[in-house]
Amino acid sequence: MFTLPQKESKAPTTCPGPASTQDLDSNHGDGLERECSRKPDWKLPEFCGVGDPTATASSDSSHLSSRGSIIKWFWDSAEEGYRTYHMDEYDEDKNPSGIINMGTSENKLCFDLLSRRLSQSDMLRVEPSLLQYPDWRGHLFLREEVARFLSFYCKSPAPLKPENVVVLNGCASLFSALATVLCEVGEAFLIPAPYYGAITQHVYLYGGVRLVCVYLDSEVTRLDTRPFQLTVEKLEMALQRANFEGVKVKGLILINPQNPLGDIYSPGELRDYLEFAKRHKLHVMVDEVYMLSVFEKSAGYHSVLSLEGLPDPQRTHVMWATSKDFGMSGLRFGTLYTENRDVATAVASLCRYHGLSGLVQYQMAQLLRDRDWINQVYLPENHARLKAAHTYVAGELRALGIPFLGRGAGFFIWVDLRKYLPEATFKEEMLLWRRFLDNKVLLSCGKAFQCKEPGWFRLVFSDKAHRLCLGMQRVRQVLEGKSQVPDDPASCQSQESGNQRSGGETPPAVL
Amino acid sequence: MFTLPQKESKAPTTCPGPASTQDLDSNHGDGLERECSRKPDWKLPEFCGVGDPTATASSDSSHLSSRGSIIKWFWDSAEEGYRTYHMDEYDEDKNPSGIINMGTSENKLCFDLLSRRLSQSDMLRVEPSLLQYPDWRGHLFLREEVARFLSFYCKSPAPLKPENVVVLNGCASLFSALATVLCEVGEAFLIPAPYYGAITQHVYLYGGVRLVCVYLDSEVTRLDTRPFQLTVEKLEMALQRANFEGVKVKGLILINPQNPLGDIYSPGELRDYLEFAKRHKLHVMVDEVYMLSVFEKSAGYHSVLSLEGLPDPQRTHVMWATSKDFGMSGLRFGTLYTENRDVATAVASLCRYHGLSGLVQYQMAQLLRDRDWINQVYLPENHARLKAAHTYVAGELRALGIPFLGRGAGFFIWVDLRKYLPEATFKEEMLLWRRFLDNKVLLSCGKAFQCKEPGWFRLVFSDKAHRLCLGMQRVRQVLEGKSQVPDDPASCQSQESGNQRSGGETPPAVL
Repeated sequence: MFTLPQKESKAPTTCPGPASTQDLDSNHGDGLERECSRKPDWKLPEFCGVGDPTATASSDSSHLSSRGSIIKWFWDSAEEGYRTYHMDEYDEDKNPSGIINMGTSENKLCFDLLSRRLSQSDMLRVEPSLLQYPDWRGHLFLREEVARFLSFYCKSPAPLKPENVVVLNGCASLFSALATVLCEVGEAFLIPAPYYGAITQHVYLYGGVRLVCVYLDSEVTRLDTRPFQLTVEKLEMALQRANFEGVKVKGLILINPQNPLGDIYSPGELRDYLEFAKRHKLHVMVDEVYMLSVFEKSAGYHSVLSLEGLPDPQRTHVMWATSKDFGMSGLRFGTLYTENRDVATAVASLCRYHGLSGLVQYQMAQLLRDRDWINQVYLPENHARLKAAHTYVAGELRALGIPFLGRGAGFFIWVDLRKYLPEATFKEEMLLWRRFLDNKVLLSCGKAFQCKEPGWFRLVFSDKAHRLCLGMQRVRQVLEGKSQVPDDPASCQSQESGNQRSGGETPPAVL
Repeated sequence: MFTLPQKESKAPTTCPGPASTQDLDSNHGDGLERECSRKPDWKLPEFCGVGDPTATASSDSSHLSSRGSIIKWFWDSAEEGYRTYHMDEYDEDKNPSGIINMGTSENKLCFDLLSRRLSQSDMLRVEPSLLQYPDWRGHLFLREEVARFLSFYCKSPAPLKPENVVVLNGCASLFSALATVLCEVGEAFLIPAPYYGAITQHVYLYGGVRLVCVYLDSEVTRLDTRPFQLTVEKLEMALQRANFEGVKVKGLILINPQNPLGDIYSPGELRDYLEFAKRHKLHVMVDEVYMLSVFEKSAGYHSVLSLEGLPDPQRTHVMWATSKDFGMSGLRFGTLYTENRDVATAVASLCRYHGLSGLVQYQMAQLLRDRDWINQVYLPENHARLKAAHTYVAGELRALGIPFLGRGAGFFIWVDLRKYLPEATFKEEMLLWRRFLDNKVLLSCGKAFQCKEPGWFRLVFSDKAHRLCLGMQRVRQVLEGKSQVPDDPASCQSQESGNQRSGGETPPAVL
């Protein structure tokens, strides 16, 4: 039933590159910010498979299986960055010279709104049915609410159905479950890179499934109208190369809005990618966890569920969660929508290992059905705050003459720091990342996203003005070669109210 | 890294038997009550591996991988029993002739106490740190509380350490994670049978790990002083046979108090089993989810964590959860305690897929630290109610002349209905199970627990007196050949208060 993974000799050049460029699991966070923290002398062969830490890892402990050692290795590899950051976290009062986190993609702008809503008395309901074994697909009342919610916010042409919904404890689990039920061990999904690197582990740790990168370029050419543009030609080429190199590709992962690019696919583009997948009988997993975090109306976001007549509905699987759009990554709520009953059932069968509390299921249903609060309070305020924070950081970057991407969606700006690398290598990228960390600001480097061009960084702006301001001061100090210059917290303090809701226009995306 | 599973030709006779005797995942519940519901004409070869539904299952859907089809098969196979029960659940007001569930091991006696405690205002705390990405091992405040809780209730000789605790969403997930990090695909754990059958899937669905049964007998012999007694000789024999047949055994699973026997291991027995494991370098997973559900003080329960000087602490891993002892299987909270840091780290690395909400982590810490409520209110009342319910059912069984086991721990009685089978076959056992279901009472049959003797049933008594009384009436009707005789709800109604807290003595365990 299980097949052996592909041998290294057959590994495609498009496969996840050297293990040292793999994204790391975080011990505490979304796992991207610490990619560069591994020791530079960690040596692994080029173009090895994901499993190649085995030799090194298995010597760690005779008590673990070889896969157990690899699983542990993913955790341990993050240790250095983890320790550095978590032993010295910034706190306005207790540790003002601590590290500012602009690496983890969390929305810290709306805890006040969320705390108020989640603390209301309607949120604490304890009844026997919530304390008993659940339907592992999720309680029906919640799946009904999710179907209504997605129908409305995804603008589906027809009402979505509760029986196509499976609820579980986050999209990490959903990637793990989908990889396992769609692929044999050693098979692969295509994914446009740069991409949210934690997916590497999500499909690999339990499922043994690999990712084949569709590498995108920053350069705008005759064919590409924007940087890092995904085209069907690039998908075709990556698939062909994987086939040629003996890697069986079973699906395509799309993230829309994209992480880390902040890119949004037009309905036409989406349809082209889906038609490509249909031609090759590939499943498409569409990760839409940022769909309500589009703070620029002009960005024109369209959910895949809004399309009339999906090309291959039986192979189209949509993922959403509250982690990003409701700024609560610690709540662990995610959902699958698929018309394929076999896939829904197989994922549900694994949901015993991904279940969430009945009490939380009740809370989520209450939250999702409160359209007045979502539409009148939460979304307008959240979008305004995201926009203000984005405007501030974009302005700072422009003042520094730094090119960047950011299209008005998500929590991050994709920043081009290539001119600050003495050489275009990932070693230099890591050294720059380290200089930021030494100057007490944590960013995520491009390597963590499998970006093929060294020098790109993801900068998360969805934080309070005071921290953003300090963080940007520290970024500026590093780039101007003035690290260790004391911060000027007073200047940040005074800007607090102004920056938080400047209401200024978001600048057009520039490179 | 992954190895192919053992071929069928090499499968040991001690391996999980025909797939048709495998325990089923439940779609809604603990998955045991519907084992017998599969169609009797479901044919699979004898002594096949767990993976053998492939051929049949993979034809289900060309969209799933072969393992995906097997995963789905586990769900689908439960469909018939599932539909029958869930379409006709008993409800005192709305469906008084519906099916009474004496199959699922849940404690329904204390929802009043739990609802009151969990509804108190200290349970709803929403703060930013709970809404952000957690430490995947569990929040430190919770791991500290778990360590204190287990130190106290397990009577550990020295305080247990928070760094040895990993918190996740239930013991099903913990079995899955431990199997994966301790074994290669196709390797196995020893488990004394009859056992809680859902473990078969927990170690197999993600981990591809199999169980090797250590079959126990009801007969009391010169060597065995009680029915279904586990001895080191039986462990040695099962291990030898597995080795002979080419199955690599990596560990031993002990459930204490045992499910479905209600058996309790003495400290001496425990130590013998642990010494056996140490001799063979086997990990031991000790599942203690019923440790606070010992309602007979004289039963003399001892947690493995109470032992002075564990024989092999680096290979001893203890599991506990709130599902049983706090009667909330829908809350999804479980925990691992192990001194092996490598194992703890590897499991933690998988906890991204088994995480529970920060809000629930806070609730659990509040609950576990409230010793006054636990010691003065919950445990005394829970034990008294369990004892009363047990006394009632035991009395009914005795009146019927039915032998049974039940040692004052857990929620169930292991009932010997062999004399009601015209032939000692699992087919007859299934027909009897079906007659119970047709007469609107759901039990779990021995086959679901890999019992090698047909005719044993697990009967769950941890329910309200009214339902218990009706359930026992229906059981009696079937056994006396008087099915379809109308219930006498009036007689049950009148007994309600008396039965619930009769305070009578629990009868000694009899066979």
